[in-house]
Amino acid sequence: MRWSGFLQNTLKETPVEAETISHILMMRAGMIRKVAAGIYTYLPAFRRSLRKLEAIVREEMDRIGQEVLMPILTPAELWKESGRWDAYGKELMRVKDRKDADFALGPTHEEVVADLVRQEVKSYRQFPLCLYQIQAKFRDEIRPRFGVMRGREFLMKDAYSFHRDRRDLDRFYEVMHAAYGRIFRKVGLDVRAVLADSGMIGGKETHEFVVFSENGESGVLWCPDRGCGYAATDEVAEGHMPAVEPDEKVLPLEEVETPGCETIKDVADFLGVEMNRCAKAMIYEADGEIVPAFVRGDRQLNEAKLGRLAGASQIELATDAARIREAGLEPGYAGPVGLSGKLRVLADASLRDRTNLVVGANHEGYHLRGANWGRDMREPEFVDLTLAEAGDGCPVCNRPLNFSRGIEVGQIFKLDTMYSEALKAMFLDEQGREQPFTMGCYGIGLSRALAAVIEQHHDEHGIVWPVQVAPFEVVLTSLGVTRESVRETSDTLYQEMLDANLDVLYDDRDLSPGFKLKDADLIGIPVRVVVGERGLRESIAEVKHRSEDKVRKIRLDGVAAQVKTELKRLKAAFQV
Amino acid sequence: MRWSGFLQNTLKETPVEAETISHILMMRAGMIRKVAAGIYTYLPAFRRSLRKLEAIVREEMDRIGQEVLMPILTPAELWKESGRWDAYGKELMRVKDRKDADFALGPTHEEVVADLVRQEVKSYRQFPLCLYQIQAKFRDEIRPRFGVMRGREFLMKDAYSFHRDRRDLDRFYEVMHAAYGRIFRKVGLDVRAVLADSGMIGGKETHEFVVFSENGESGVLWCPDRGCGYAATDEVAEGHMPAVEPDEKVLPLEEVETPGCETIKDVADFLGVEMNRCAKAMIYEADGEIVPAFVRGDRQLNEAKLGRLAGASQIELATDAARIREAGLEPGYAGPVGLSGKLRVLADASLRDRTNLVVGANHEGYHLRGANWGRDMREPEFVDLTLAEAGDGCPVCNRPLNFSRGIEVGQIFKLDTMYSEALKAMFLDEQGREQPFTMGCYGIGLSRALAAVIEQHHDEHGIVWPVQVAPFEVVLTSLGVTRESVRETSDTLYQEMLDANLDVLYDDRDLSPGFKLKDADLIGIPVRVVVGERGLRESIAEVKHRSEDKVRKIRLDGVAAQVKTELKRLKAAFQV
Repeated sequence: MRWSGFLQNTLKETPVEAETISHILMMRAGMIRKVAAGIYTYLPAFRRSLRKLEAIVREEMDRIGQEVLMPILTPAELWKESGRWDAYGKELMRVKDRKDADFALGPTHEEVVADLVRQEVKSYRQFPLCLYQIQAKFRDEIRPRFGVMRGREFLMKDAYSFHRDRRDLDRFYEVMHAAYGRIFRKVGLDVRAVLADSGMIGGKETHEFVVFSENGESGVLWCPDRGCGYAATDEVAEGHMPAVEPDEKVLPLEEVETPGCETIKDVADFLGVEMNRCAKAMIYEADGEIVPAFVRGDRQLNEAKLGRLAGASQIELATDAARIREAGLEPGYAGPVGLSGKLRVLADASLRDRTNLVVGANHEGYHLRGANWGRDMREPEFVDLTLAEAGDGCPVCNRPLNFSRGIEVGQIFKLDTMYSEALKAMFLDEQGREQPFTMGCYGIGLSRALAAVIEQHHDEHGIVWPVQVAPFEVVLTSLGVTRESVRETSDTLYQEMLDANLDVLYDDRDLSPGFKLKDADLIGIPVRVVVGERGLRESIAEVKHRSEDKVRKIRLDGVAAQVKTELKRLKAAFQV
Repeated sequence: MRWSGFLQNTLKETPVEAETISHILMMRAGMIRKVAAGIYTYLPAFRRSLRKLEAIVREEMDRIGQEVLMPILTPAELWKESGRWDAYGKELMRVKDRKDADFALGPTHEEVVADLVRQEVKSYRQFPLCLYQIQAKFRDEIRPRFGVMRGREFLMKDAYSFHRDRRDLDRFYEVMHAAYGRIFRKVGLDVRAVLADSGMIGGKETHEFVVFSENGESGVLWCPDRGCGYAATDEVAEGHMPAVEPDEKVLPLEEVETPGCETIKDVADFLGVEMNRCAKAMIYEADGEIVPAFVRGDRQLNEAKLGRLAGASQIELATDAARIREAGLEPGYAGPVGLSGKLRVLADASLRDRTNLVVGANHEGYHLRGANWGRDMREPEFVDLTLAEAGDGCPVCNRPLNFSRGIEVGQIFKLDTMYSEALKAMFLDEQGREQPFTMGCYGIGLSRALAAVIEQHHDEHGIVWPVQVAPFEVVLTSLGVTRESVRETSDTLYQEMLDANLDVLYDDRDLSPGFKLKDADLIGIPVRVVVGERGLRESIAEVKHRSEDKVRKIRLDGVAAQVKTELKRLKAAFQV
């Protein structure tokens, strides 16, 4: 491909909106352009990388599954059968057709595929079955950001497996787990499978495949002990908090004015106590109901845990002061004392055995100290509400956990019979009895995975593509195309490279050498071949790998063959 | 692939809804399943064929263009810039996001791509440029039918080209025309490029690629003279109608009762005149306005021509009798006499030079005879409103035209500067002047094209796939899998075929021989290899091509190699 005719315009400036490295580089390298918030056009260079990724994904999936294509327009009836029409909330994009029938734009396809399989498969003999597809998905994120990393329309590979029983699902889950590992290794991603939250998909056991990266939106707690190997997203991670002993002496309850104390730290400092003595109140609305939740003052509340405990489809921080007061709580000074028995009150288990707590007085400007469960305030539901932190003890081996940020590039779920029971999807087992089938589901965010590749493979000059998913394998940079000798030699070499079946981008643009060399670094093609006047005098071209500093002089007539050999070596490094 | 684990359940019965051969066979052969009206899941066999078709399309498109991927969610603002947000009517599916912003589900992408190119391309040096994508498209058809032939969600390849001037577009249009020809030939489709209506896409010159088929929804008029080569869809075809000479003597206007005459034929018979003397009235609503249109009593009105003439976005037969009467027309007895000057009245040019016409009296139960333009009724707008018919004279060479039904599998358009002017999409030409770019657009309905392949390649037993787009190239049918000798031999042969890189479906299902042989015919794999007990005694398998009757005995140890050779030959027939 000649760059003069290729739609890949690089940008010198960092686009205002772009915050993460991958977003910045994908914009600057001319790979994506924004159409609306979270909605992008994938330009030719990105499409090329995606095609290569798709081929890698298909290679692995075709071994263990069959490709299908389900519709993007999915009928509301199916979503109602599973209960997700209501439960999914605003993230599910909805359309009415000309006859006013309701459809959802598929964010995932458990219902549609379960409906297909309940119609097509009647006997255990047809299990196990694994179906997958590659398709645009739609999720109306509240805060789309980071380019294709958190988009509202994105490309996904989703797979669904069907089994006669849980045991076969368990077996297949490992097969898929291994296939995912190979896919990510082939594209040069260093991933870690971690325990995760199943979110809107559901199911009891699920792993996310996470690429560690400062720009990741997921937090991962992981045990440094390789033998233990515990790793989980912060949404589900359990950590042993250093315990605090209760005071021996129980103090009387006392209301104190806490002027100007806006944070727990202010209150603790003002009263001269440790933050862990304070019960921090967080007030939520769970499906419209006010739910106060208390955690130790020195720790953060884990909203995902709270959401699961509340059993609500929508949960968010309560913001309506009038409603909060109606529930008997004072915003900014909320506490567990004097609350109505009708109110559901949650508190982290770490507060259970404590005495003499400092709590909000439900009275503006005041706190209570010496608050004790039972005596001063009704016992709440004690549950696990705390966000695990680095340093907490590993729940398996109790070694201190590490924390890293990461990007989720895939997730696998054991759905069990959740959907088949909801959809009454039955098969006949060997004894001729009707049984709901057992399901798994498995996703890879393809557009996001390539962004994650960039997060892991770049330097200060631009992208450093692993060869398997590079838009091109070679860039032929011709310096001085206005000089006939350079142009002719470059043209000849380009043709030789095409004849050798090299996947080459030929930079034949009439631009300055500095600009062209910078562009080559920015777009990150693994091998660069430079033809310029100086080299011509020696009949050489300069060959350089994007990932190395060394520039090598290669005789012009041997360049195509030499590059072909080097690419083979580069590819071999990613063989699985 | 072993059929026992492959999701392709054949149906014995013809599904109720299915009317066309391709719809029936795609359902029966287990290629598609309906999810909602006009919305299907593509099962693995169909997805395999589509992947092969996609590869053929990409091979041709990559030579002349660059693949991109634009979003399915397209912002209303862009559609408003072009005017199509309103003009497209109900076929355009609309979605609101959580912030109430409007989007359309892309039925085509002229606006989105023109917006991209106006931002990315500033100079004539970057033209010509051709971008294409393969993507699900959405059109909310009033009457979805014929399976994937007229669906509401379907797979399409759409391409857009950009040029500095019309001359370069004209050149590229021919390049694309030729590429389309190669694509269709490679998949075994016999297509004809015909002049067509540009419909909602717009532009001045357009060709449809039509597969002649009794089940087609398009009508094509074509000149039998190969040198002439005129061919056009009936929406645009012009034909010379045999003229009718006017009477020499002008008669007086006379109202006559026409009891029980419900059709033009009834009226003509009752009055003892030829149908061509009658002016047939068709009353339309064009964007809400009542428009009567008259054609010769022996001919049909061409709604597409009327639509273009009316310049309306929505045109349909008026059904509200009260509104029709308000306009001074009597339903069933409508005529041009006595109409208000405010009413727009259209009549086919063939009625212009006629005298003594029979027309409706706008008076229930009555017609007028001896009606003459000017004297009795205001001259209407005389325009071309007639549907051309077989036997009409070719507009180029005047030979009688033929008529065939056909399926549109692709269409190419010269859009000129229509969209670039609407979107103010400019570039700088060689003289540094701002100019709107010139555009072309080019579509292939991929899912529909495969249905068309089935329409052209089937027999009474099922599909007869051309090898390039067959789901598998070989089916290995094992008869009697419960006998160990047969099963072992079949398993071994299957493995040999896999080792020889044959694209094989292994029918290892425990079903009767009759059932399995029927299924093989139904799903239409090009080469069938049968292993059965009888053959084993002679150490042979039976090889048969789906398109031939002849069964050949091939020694078992030579089968894989033999089939490989035969497939090469079959493929060579489709080389372009």
